[in-house]
Amino acid sequence: MQYKQINDDYFIHIEKNEKVMKTFTEFCIKNNISNAKISGIGAVKNTEVGAYDTLKKEYIKKKFNDILELVSFEGNITLNNGTPFPHAHVVLSDHSMNTFGGHLFETTIAAVGEFFLKKNDYGAYRKLNNDIGLPCIVLENKF
Amino acid sequence: MQYKQINDDYFIHIEKNEKVMKTFTEFCIKNNISNAKISGIGAVKNTEVGAYDTLKKEYIKKKFNDILELVSFEGNITLNNGTPFPHAHVVLSDHSMNTFGGHLFETTIAAVGEFFLKKNDYGAYRKLNNDIGLPCIVLENKF
Amino acid sequence: MQYKQINDDYFIHIEKNEKVMKTFTEFCIKNNISNAKISGIGAVKNTEVGAYDTLKKEYIKKKFNDILELVSFEGNITLNNGTPFPHAHVVLSDHSMNTFGGHLFETTIAAVGEFFLKKNDYGAYRKLNNDIGLPCIVLENKF
Repeated sequence: MQYKQINDDYFIHIEKNEKVMKTFTEFCIKNNISNAKISGIGAVKNTEVGAYDTLKKEYIKKKFNDILELVSFEGNITLNNGTPFPHAHVVLSDHSMNTFGGHLFETTIAAVGEFFLKKNDYGAYRKLNNDIGLPCIVLENKF
Repeated sequence: MQYKQINDDYFIHIEKNEKVMKTFTEFCIKNNISNAKISGIGAVKNTEVGAYDTLKKEYIKKKFNDILELVSFEGNITLNNGTPFPHAHVVLSDHSMNTFGGHLFETTIAAVGEFFLKKNDYGAYRKLNNDIGLPCIVLENKF
Repeated sequence: MQYKQINDDYFIHIEKNEKVMKTFTEFCIKNNISNAKISGIGAVKNTEVGAYDTLKKEYIKKKFNDILELVSFEGNITLNNGTPFPHAHVVLSDHSMNTFGGHLFETTIAAVGEFFLKKNDYGAYRKLNNDIGLPCIVLENKF
């Protein structure tokens, strides 16, 4: 992984054969980034995505082993159990330009991974919400 | 809806059963946000999206009642008739990881809605363009 | 094309019949923008997208002549051979709300194109990576 930081903004190149979520997690831990916006594009392989079943309160999972374009990657970093935790949703496209998408568990860069990270001290952390069945973001103000 | 503001950046958690476009509109009116970039991810239900028919100058609309992953939400806030107006396009995915997309009319959070809003005083407003048939963004400089 | 700059942030309206990648390239050259994050939404026509074949080291290309919603556009500006070069991936949707996606070669605005550009002097440039077969981003720091 290569990167360049300008104030709170990071330009990040996750390189071939590196795992995206593992890299973001380790980078944020090492650099004390507890809250951030993350986004990017690339080409990936061995991708596991999911869809949340709100009734069963569990993820339906699907694995895409082929090399696919990462056409959209959008998400955030928050603290979960005191540790930086990346949450991202992705859209993938195949060689026929058909698309697939979901909650990203993990994916590995197949060619390039070009991301931006903007950190900000929002004080956001995740707390288990029993109604939803997921650790949900807690923020200071209500509207 | 929960939020935290740091200068011009907002981290926003639109909560279960809250409407996304209604929440953005009301939040921007209340907080005098006339121009902003908005983006995010989540899980939604009762979603109405559209595609603009440029010949008939009207939107073709489609309703998705099922709970879907909101895999991409990207848009902006501008003034329309003097009022903050959110314009966003979305990509949705189902339990088979198939995707759908379009112009977002409205959607309701089914689990979580995690968004970022970055405000900026661009002075952008919308004005009806008769050729296109839509209120289009007007900005100060031409290139 | 209309735009408004606030410090390092640009709100950009690429107008009907203007080409998106050509416009970004020319605008960045004229305004000395060598590195930036770009994103946006709109409605487009005559769109050429691709998927990178990592074995043949060439793009598979596909042309969509119809008017489609640009539901996601995410990318960056870096220097390639000393010149500002836009790299973007897109998701498109048709009148049935079905989606397609890939690496964007070029597209023309059919109704509106609403984009944000955030410049930053990351010092990022592209250098041919023979293993991958593409000019890949080089950044100052390794992780």
